[in-house]
Amino acid sequence: MAAARKAAPGALRWTQLFEEGDASMRELLGGKGAGLAEMCRVGLPVPPGFTINTKACVEYMRTGRKIPAGLLDEVEARMRALEEKVGKRFGDPANPLLVSVRSGALFSMPGMMDTVLNLGLNDRTLDGLIRLTGNERFARDAYRRLIQMFGKTVLGIPGEKFEHIIQRAKARKRVVEDTALDADDLRGIVDAFRRLVKSERGTEFPQDPREQLRMAILAVFNSWQGKRAVDYRNFHGISHDLGTAVNVQVMVFGNMGSDSGTGVAFTRNPATGERGMFGEYLMNAQGEDVVAGIRNPKPIAELAKDLPKAYDEFLGVCEMLERHYREVQDLEFTIERGRLWMLQTRSGKRTAQAAVKIAVDMAREGLISKEEALLRVEPGQIDMLLHPRFDPRAKEAASAAGRFMARGLNASPGAAVGLAVFDADTAEAWGKAGKPVILVRPETNPDDVHGMLNAKGILTSRGGATSHAAVVARGLGLPCVAGCEALRVDVEALRLSVDGRTVRQGEYISIDGGTGEVFSGELPAIEPRLEDQAELIELLSWADKARRLGVWANADYPRDAVRARIFGAEGIGLCRTEHMFFEEDRLPMVRQMILNAGEAQALLDRSRAAERAAAERPEDKKLKAEVRAAGQALRASQAVRLYQAALSKLLRLQRKDFEGLFRAMDGLPVIVRLIDPPLHEFLPSHDSLLEETSALRARIEALEGVRRWRPGKGQLSLGALRAEMRRKEAQLRAVDAMREANPMLGLRGIRLGLTYPAIIAMQVRAIMEAACRVTKRGVVAVPEIMIPLVSHVNELRETHRELVEVVRDVLDHECVKVAYKFGTMIELPRACFVAGEIAQHAEFFSFGTNDLTQTIFGISRDDAEGKFLLQFVEKGILPKNPFQTIDRPGVGEAMKMAVSGGRTQRPGLEIGICGEHGGDPESIEFCHSLGLNYVSCSPYRVPVARLAAAQAALRERMKAARDV
Amino acid sequence: MAAARKAAPGALRWTQLFEEGDASMRELLGGKGAGLAEMCRVGLPVPPGFTINTKACVEYMRTGRKIPAGLLDEVEARMRALEEKVGKRFGDPANPLLVSVRSGALFSMPGMMDTVLNLGLNDRTLDGLIRLTGNERFARDAYRRLIQMFGKTVLGIPGEKFEHIIQRAKARKRVVEDTALDADDLRGIVDAFRRLVKSERGTEFPQDPREQLRMAILAVFNSWQGKRAVDYRNFHGISHDLGTAVNVQVMVFGNMGSDSGTGVAFTRNPATGERGMFGEYLMNAQGEDVVAGIRNPKPIAELAKDLPKAYDEFLGVCEMLERHYREVQDLEFTIERGRLWMLQTRSGKRTAQAAVKIAVDMAREGLISKEEALLRVEPGQIDMLLHPRFDPRAKEAASAAGRFMARGLNASPGAAVGLAVFDADTAEAWGKAGKPVILVRPETNPDDVHGMLNAKGILTSRGGATSHAAVVARGLGLPCVAGCEALRVDVEALRLSVDGRTVRQGEYISIDGGTGEVFSGELPAIEPRLEDQAELIELLSWADKARRLGVWANADYPRDAVRARIFGAEGIGLCRTEHMFFEEDRLPMVRQMILNAGEAQALLDRSRAAERAAAERPEDKKLKAEVRAAGQALRASQAVRLYQAALSKLLRLQRKDFEGLFRAMDGLPVIVRLIDPPLHEFLPSHDSLLEETSALRARIEALEGVRRWRPGKGQLSLGALRAEMRRKEAQLRAVDAMREANPMLGLRGIRLGLTYPAIIAMQVRAIMEAACRVTKRGVVAVPEIMIPLVSHVNELRETHRELVEVVRDVLDHECVKVAYKFGTMIELPRACFVAGEIAQHAEFFSFGTNDLTQTIFGISRDDAEGKFLLQFVEKGILPKNPFQTIDRPGVGEAMKMAVSGGRTQRPGLEIGICGEHGGDPESIEFCHSLGLNYVSCSPYRVPVARLAAAQAALRERMKAARDV
Repeated sequence: MAAARKAAPGALRWTQLFEEGDASMRELLGGKGAGLAEMCRVGLPVPPGFTINTKACVEYMRTGRKIPAGLLDEVEARMRALEEKVGKRFGDPANPLLVSVRSGALFSMPGMMDTVLNLGLNDRTLDGLIRLTGNERFARDAYRRLIQMFGKTVLGIPGEKFEHIIQRAKARKRVVEDTALDADDLRGIVDAFRRLVKSERGTEFPQDPREQLRMAILAVFNSWQGKRAVDYRNFHGISHDLGTAVNVQVMVFGNMGSDSGTGVAFTRNPATGERGMFGEYLMNAQGEDVVAGIRNPKPIAELAKDLPKAYDEFLGVCEMLERHYREVQDLEFTIERGRLWMLQTRSGKRTAQAAVKIAVDMAREGLISKEEALLRVEPGQIDMLLHPRFDPRAKEAASAAGRFMARGLNASPGAAVGLAVFDADTAEAWGKAGKPVILVRPETNPDDVHGMLNAKGILTSRGGATSHAAVVARGLGLPCVAGCEALRVDVEALRLSVDGRTVRQGEYISIDGGTGEVFSGELPAIEPRLEDQAELIELLSWADKARRLGVWANADYPRDAVRARIFGAEGIGLCRTEHMFFEEDRLPMVRQMILNAGEAQALLDRSRAAERAAAERPEDKKLKAEVRAAGQALRASQAVRLYQAALSKLLRLQRKDFEGLFRAMDGLPVIVRLIDPPLHEFLPSHDSLLEETSALRARIEALEGVRRWRPGKGQLSLGALRAEMRRKEAQLRAVDAMREANPMLGLRGIRLGLTYPAIIAMQVRAIMEAACRVTKRGVVAVPEIMIPLVSHVNELRETHRELVEVVRDVLDHECVKVAYKFGTMIELPRACFVAGEIAQHAEFFSFGTNDLTQTIFGISRDDAEGKFLLQFVEKGILPKNPFQTIDRPGVGEAMKMAVSGGRTQRPGLEIGICGEHGGDPESIEFCHSLGLNYVSCSPYRVPVARLAAAQAALRERMKAARDV
Repeated sequence: MAAARKAAPGALRWTQLFEEGDASMRELLGGKGAGLAEMCRVGLPVPPGFTINTKACVEYMRTGRKIPAGLLDEVEARMRALEEKVGKRFGDPANPLLVSVRSGALFSMPGMMDTVLNLGLNDRTLDGLIRLTGNERFARDAYRRLIQMFGKTVLGIPGEKFEHIIQRAKARKRVVEDTALDADDLRGIVDAFRRLVKSERGTEFPQDPREQLRMAILAVFNSWQGKRAVDYRNFHGISHDLGTAVNVQVMVFGNMGSDSGTGVAFTRNPATGERGMFGEYLMNAQGEDVVAGIRNPKPIAELAKDLPKAYDEFLGVCEMLERHYREVQDLEFTIERGRLWMLQTRSGKRTAQAAVKIAVDMAREGLISKEEALLRVEPGQIDMLLHPRFDPRAKEAASAAGRFMARGLNASPGAAVGLAVFDADTAEAWGKAGKPVILVRPETNPDDVHGMLNAKGILTSRGGATSHAAVVARGLGLPCVAGCEALRVDVEALRLSVDGRTVRQGEYISIDGGTGEVFSGELPAIEPRLEDQAELIELLSWADKARRLGVWANADYPRDAVRARIFGAEGIGLCRTEHMFFEEDRLPMVRQMILNAGEAQALLDRSRAAERAAAERPEDKKLKAEVRAAGQALRASQAVRLYQAALSKLLRLQRKDFEGLFRAMDGLPVIVRLIDPPLHEFLPSHDSLLEETSALRARIEALEGVRRWRPGKGQLSLGALRAEMRRKEAQLRAVDAMREANPMLGLRGIRLGLTYPAIIAMQVRAIMEAACRVTKRGVVAVPEIMIPLVSHVNELRETHRELVEVVRDVLDHECVKVAYKFGTMIELPRACFVAGEIAQHAEFFSFGTNDLTQTIFGISRDDAEGKFLLQFVEKGILPKNPFQTIDRPGVGEAMKMAVSGGRTQRPGLEIGICGEHGGDPESIEFCHSLGLNYVSCSPYRVPVARLAAAQAALRERMKAARDV
């Protein structure tokens, strides 16, 4: 039957009558067309019509806006079919057929041409319509509507020009409502409209109905490439190649008197998800009157009084369609002289909250299965349910009050309100004193972390989505708006300003990290908790049963770990130890360690090499002498003393950090990554040192040239200035020696470990000592030690060998059994190529897809996002931002190689992902398909990932079932 | 027969008698062992002996220096066989057998333990030897030699301590020559030696012959892992896993009187390659006496007088062995009481010049085929024949005179002598005045290119192998020593100094870019020309017939192209257009272009977008108005004016550049790469601007604080200082806006082209206009336009579409037919993954293996080479420097994917390589195996590549033949 229906229009390429389609043909017919076809199919009252399919639009675009061959002939044939069905003729003055034209893409989107009604009317058919209906006012109003809609949407004349004409007419007549205009008034308005069209476009409003229809159809096609539609598709990642369908349908009229009306309704409340029909209607009106808001529509329930029969019938249709589609429906209907006509049915859009409630309710009602319920909720919606957010009405009000300041990068989601503070020390002080603080900086660096830890949110005017501020904020779950370049942040004057609006230190500011918006003053925020969201908890519990992929969290601090566990994390997939180094009280030690590392490590290496050589040839006196000499040099060196002192202080602090993490994750694995960033990141910035030394030098030179200059009060003497300059110059030299042209590709990760083995040995000692200590107190510690940035197997083999010694030493000493693993990040292309070799020395892999994307594309995210990357995405040069969603043809293929190589060498190898992609639903689906063991993401994204992982598993199962 | 010989020792794992082996067993027996075995096999007189094979050494190392099970038993059995052969017994006081122990790895290398002679002597067998030979002096001298060699090489006692004892004895006796010492003296020396051993090592010199033998064997094994041997293998890329063999051989004595002697000889002259035996000998001496140089050896021809019979026999052996091996032999022989014994034969090492001459001569003589001749010359040797070089003796003399200053990076080969000059302007002025100049800078940047163009060589104290200086120098074929950190370059004081030695501006300096050495003063240099080297030209003509791979050259300037053609290049594989930008007279234009590009391009884009939109909807008045407005903004903008003025000036200049290239390469393809480096590379440096502005600000502030300060003579007023500061600050802002954290992964290559399309459109216009113009003058121009840094096919599609328009426009306008191609560099991992897609829009591929290596390893070469990369290579963490030789498991696999993807999409796709690997023989072999069409390298490496390509083809053919 279905096959026969689909086969029928075989001869016609570009069009289908409604009765020739069904709900499954959404891609071809668009959402609206498929809905009309399906309603037709199940016998609901739908005005006859046909759909010009999306292929026609694609062909039109492909050929540079040429009308596809045969399309107009097909339209003509379809129009004749409609004429036969309703016994009227298009353009026939005696008995005119009127039609509407509506766009209907696969996904509805703003900016697409919406609707033109009453096509077929012209000066001559107007008379026929008057005669036929005996209602001149109705007919002239229909003509007025046609010219207005056509002029605006097809001819592109600003809508307010038409509105002005109507306003003037009403003003002349001193009435308020359109309904108060009579046939004569409308005749005048029509004339004025036609003059407007002439003057705006230089041609007459087309009188030929076929020309009207042709132009309307092409206007729909063209609107597919309109700027707003393109922007929308870019933003939502919708392909530009889909095209839109066009629906041509016989008109029915809700404005034919008091037994007529029109309305829209949802089968459940789209804001809350509560059960029961929800909608509104207008009597004696056409559809656009409801939308336009000129008259106040009534709640749908009142239709029961106005037109009980039609209401009952509509109720039945609603129930029937919700059951038929097993989904909340968004319906449009018209009642013409007591008779109900359905004009649209589609899935109802809903808020995140409603989506969860509806899905869970429907599953409980037995309408859908739990699996279907899981597939009904967008993972991204869950994210919104867990971050504090601003009340949208409060935002609108604030904007109206001129408090909107600017929009930056939505770097870390959530809403935050606090007092603007312009330096980290103040932020820390105020935060500890219990004041809510937003830290505002041009950009942040490691020196600011103590301030960030005590802030409610971060706002920067520079830097991209992986700037220090953004990364730390996401790690901390702090809302962050980054790179808000419109703002001038003046840290000297303690204020930020844009377009004359200024916020001073201590004044309130509100930032929305989910949208990037910045407001002055306080905005009321809603702080949802997972514990309060019963339906969400239930849905996630179903997700946990459905998914195969584990969900772990990235957490650097015990409190993040606690939050992650509440959100359902099954392990820590990434603890970045260097974030512990960045804390203010530790930085001096870290710097002491770094500045002495080179000299100290050379002496340590020398001593070790001598001892080894001597052990091999114990009879060799020269070697013995070298052992003694090396030992003396070691003991005599201040660098070694400072280096080792710093290391042992850091050992104690890191051990405490890890103890906290192991306690929080009791029984669950904790992957600790050894130090990764280049060491100069921990040192004062090159630029500020260069500025300082240059300034000091110039100052000294200038003052030397002045005779008998003596320092004033509070000024330094020349001698003191010179000493200060020498000190700064020494610092600058140290920083310069470590400076790199491309630090991302420099002395980092395992390369650092191989160059300064004592640092990572200290870290491993801290991890294992912490594990032993908590084990003795009954906690189950499951440490997994992760070595970053491996490109060659030898790097890993060498490092692994050294570190295993440290682990054994600790375990022997502490006499405790602790299960541990060594593994590596896979974050360089070469590691993917030689994953098999690497797996010989790694008990687990964790994909660092951020770096992997950077190296596979050869794009530095920090440099690119602000400069060209997002522009390329916007222009369609890159289909997506590869830093948000894994690029499958490139990065994805490399990952596939690595999984296959790794598991061939070591069957059952544990493989996860800890890059930011681990929280992106589309990437999670890909990770599932790769057969990874888990994804690891920031704690707040754990629920999102649980749902996305479940959906991936379900879709895979569905596909397997289909393939069978 | 051979099989039987090889099968015989099956039972014994670790040893072979000489007669059980042959020349093919080099891997197992080492070079020396295989040579001895082969001489045995062909019936030459070789003292009996056996070889402990390399497997034994490998096993010894593998087990952490445990003697392989069964080895000592085998040695015992083999010794018994020797005893039977010669009728003496090891350790038998009555008739003692003496043996020598020599190392013998597959490749001979310095640092390996060399030789211990006379093992088997002790206090008791000494007496036997005295009785047996009736020559007490000879016997005591043999004992003396044993203890001396054993003490030095096995026990590690410094050789000079033994020498001192001999010197003292000679002094006491007031004689000069060792031969003047009699048996009594030697007895005293032996006693002194034994006391020395006791005091140095705490134990007696071992009296047990078996213990002597065991210790000597292990000493050979251990020397495999000695520092010098390891360093040597690292440097020469020899695997550390090969192990060494040990040869134990019955002693023969060249010091048994006036009918005895010993010598070494080559079958042809190893320095010049001339025909005829070349060598020297000593009568009544042991081998080490020849090497030690205590007595002056005589030319080998004189042996005809001393021992005519032995000489004739030796001549015969020489001829026989050269014919047998079909290769120049390096021989050692001893004549014991008139009887000739052969102790070694191996391929003779030779200079580059000799290698070429010998190979060509032997092929002409019919001794070897042309193919073999090609395989006999190391491609690297050819490189040495074409670069100017210093006479090694002159170097030695200069070093002895204290003129050696330091050693830096050998960044670009060749010898250069000139006057030290410390800035580019002076270098240009002096150079143009005909003075030879060496430009000495801390580092170079684009501002220095005009100076480099007029210099004979470049010396920098900072920067690695891809620093600006190194890259430009290699491109220009200029010798360059880079990153010579020991030197202090003081550009203010116009001098460079190290350890108290100073060279001032205008004084001579000599640099060797092939070794990195720097000398003060003038060193005589030899400047070879290809045209003068007939044998080399002949060899290369044979190579051209043998090779399948094309050899092209990288050349940015017409004169490079001319040189490349002389050297045999068949095309230009890479012309870097940006190098043309770097010339001093163009930099101002380039900067004008860059500083206005952002604003101008935005206005150009707006205007273009408006025109396109209006063309689509000609009826739309709003769009027409926008076209007008955009056009006005365009015309009104100063940025656009400056931008376009700069572009059209550059267009004219670049056109001229390209005309020169096309003329030089008449008929051959010229691949021009569109601009690649980030634009900020052309701007003044951030650091210097920051220093200047900071200094100015500090100066102003300091002087503002001084009451009634007035500028002195030549000083700027405060107002002038402030104006200067504002100017510099504006420059700094412009540079800062373009600054990138990781410029290598930033706005470069095609990304630049997509962001500023007018720049690459200008370049393509210049290329095609140049091609048209020279075509009209009868030159055959074959332009291939190359787009760099593609990662996504859409980038290329978009750019290609735009540029093809430009090409068509030029061709239409000029009315000339020019064959052209568009292609892309494959230099990012992603491009390798999606090479098939990319090939849809590329008519050729060129591998940029430098960037590909950087991204696949995640290593920035500039940062890494100086800091950790070479260290990792030295430690064996990386098997080779991947920037010198293509890393096959990573980069190579990616290339393989790209070749296969590209040729699947576009069969016969032209693929080449233009990275620096294109001149590396091992990488060339790999490129051959990948089926590339050509390699492109710097002009001087073209002959090297021709030979390497031929060798690759020959080896492949040989392998195929073997496989059949």
